[in-house]
Amino acid sequence: MIDLYTWTTPNGYKPIILLEELGLAYQIKPIDIGSGAQKTPEYLRINPNGKIPALQDHDRPNGPVTVFESGAILIYLAEKTGKLLPASEPGRSRVIEWLMFQMGAVGPMLGQLGHFRSAAPEKIPYAIERYQNEQDRIYKVLDGRLAESEYLADEYSIADIATFPWISMAARMGVDVEPYPNLARWEQAIKARPAVTRAFAAKIKP
Amino acid sequence: MIDLYTWTTPNGYKPIILLEELGLAYQIKPIDIGSGAQKTPEYLRINPNGKIPALQDHDRPNGPVTVFESGAILIYLAEKTGKLLPASEPGRSRVIEWLMFQMGAVGPMLGQLGHFRSAAPEKIPYAIERYQNEQDRIYKVLDGRLAESEYLADEYSIADIATFPWISMAARMGVDVEPYPNLARWEQAIKARPAVTRAFAAKIKP
Ligand SMILES: N[C@@H](CCC(=O)N[C@@H](CS)C(=O)NCC(=O)O)C(=O)O
Ligand SMILES: N[C@@H](CCC(=O)N[C@@H](CS)C(=O)NCC(=O)O)C(=O)O
Repeated sequence: MIDLYTWTTPNGYKPIILLEELGLAYQIKPIDIGSGAQKTPEYLRINPNGKIPALQDHDRPNGPVTVFESGAILIYLAEKTGKLLPASEPGRSRVIEWLMFQMGAVGPMLGQLGHFRSAAPEKIPYAIERYQNEQDRIYKVLDGRLAESEYLADEYSIADIATFPWISMAARMGVDVEPYPNLARWEQAIKARPAVTRAFAAKIKP
Repeated sequence: MIDLYTWTTPNGYKPIILLEELGLAYQIKPIDIGSGAQKTPEYLRINPNGKIPALQDHDRPNGPVTVFESGAILIYLAEKTGKLLPASEPGRSRVIEWLMFQMGAVGPMLGQLGHFRSAAPEKIPYAIERYQNEQDRIYKVLDGRLAESEYLADEYSIADIATFPWISMAARMGVDVEPYPNLARWEQAIKARPAVTRAFAAKIKP
């Protein structure tokens, strides 16, 4: 059995979507990040970074494997099954580079935008504008890629799975995808996948 | 031959260190990000994100392979040579998770700290404090890991190579590593590697 430590956030949905796409059996272990469950000593032994998601795979010949960081979990599951991440070039690096772009730019920068727009106790125009500009720049990079390719890599892959929950969450916090027509088309296509519907219907909160 | 498009920044040094560790022949193509060389139409065909580094490997049976995002370049070169990234678990995920932690946390957060400390036209105490706290939190995570392990993963790997240039650059911008003794020990050990010395001596600026 695979145990997935997660919560109802963009990084938390990524591995759920992939597990649904792969049809692997898994069990959700809810980690309520609003109540600080990600900082308990027990959980820090699973993820020393004190964040969700993390995964524990008990179906291993030499004992359980634990993985933290959503990008590492996606690579782990894709390689375990041989799916959604090509084994050879050039397809392989296409997937990994767009996955890294999600991990290093899409996630952190939309995260900062969300913080300065909603969570920060004071409204700081300079910071809000800085991250709005980053969001626009990043969305244009994605839109440009999706103008020439149906998916971020050459085929549907863990790069799309990593990016979709962020674009979808940003829309709910008021970042409009309409000015980026190729990204908007892609968002609709990913949203329509049965595995994605199942993932967002998964029972996470106890 | 391998062409490496890079500049004298933390992300730019990562692939140079790895190429030196691997003993692969490569040629540096300088992209002066101070003069906007990363945004020319020719370079955007190599890296649509308009940043350094990017790599082009011409030694491929089916035509050149182009890779952008430093994390993807490190995985590409490690897999090409079978070195510094184990092929099997649990060693493999240990490397990939710490590499992702660098890509998603160490790099972006130290980047924001540098921006609000030095580059931003106004000094915004809230933002500076936010990213100082993030730096401290991240350094404690690294220090905790390095208290139990000589390297970030089980052995020296591309995770160390990705993280070192950031810790080293942050020290130059005044982030003291001394309060984190295990991280300080690790930094000295990485710095002492001949390949790292060669990398930082590489001629990048024309
Ligand atoms: N780079 C990490 C980021 C994980 C992350 O930021 N998780 C958030 C939820 S989306 C979290 O656990 N936040 C709670 C906290 O920081 O205490 C990954 O991709 O796994
Ligand atoms: N996540 C990217 C980040 C690359 C990056 O931020 N590169 C910086 C230099 S360290 C750059 O090219 N900056 C110029 C610019 O943004 O215009 C990677 O790891 O490759």
